[in-house]
Amino acid sequence: MAKVNVYVTLKPELLDAQGKVVKAALENLGYNGVQDARVGKFIEIVIADSGNIEKDVDEMCRKLLVNPNTEDYRFEIEKG
Amino acid sequence: MAKVNVYVTLKPELLDAQGKVVKAALENLGYNGVQDARVGKFIEIVIADSGNIEKDVDEMCRKLLVNPNTEDYRFEIEKG
Repeated sequence: MAKVNVYVTLKPELLDAQGKVVKAALENLGYNGVQDARVGKFIEIVIADSGNIEKDVDEMCRKLLVNPNTEDYRFEIEKG
Repeated sequence: MAKVNVYVTLKPELLDAQGKVVKAALENLGYNGVQDARVGKFIEIVIADSGNIEKDVDEMCRKLLVNPNTEDYRFEIEKG
């Protein structure tokens, strides 16, 4: 069994509207030191250890979890 | 300047509808080893180094970024 953490972020060159809202809201709360905020997804998957997890997870990202036109991704696999 | 990564996850005792959809979609794609999938948020914040970042970020989470009734959170601070 392995636990996989996938981090999906909007490509840096794209405007992150949700991040802008978070930044503005933090400023309204008095946190004036905030330079930037960006909001992405964090996906946790528990998967049977196939011996091929790295390739499988990369495929899952490209086929389902990530929009390759607008998003970047990285993942960590914790075997155990 | 510091970079803060905030990970927001649904509390484990709550049903994660979005995670269930991801799990079902992965199974439909032929990944039968998937035991569980949960979808959370990943928020990146760049903030001026106030000397008090840990406390500030914890407050930002509790006041804005996290719903403490339904969500857990953790964060990492990369000073640089």
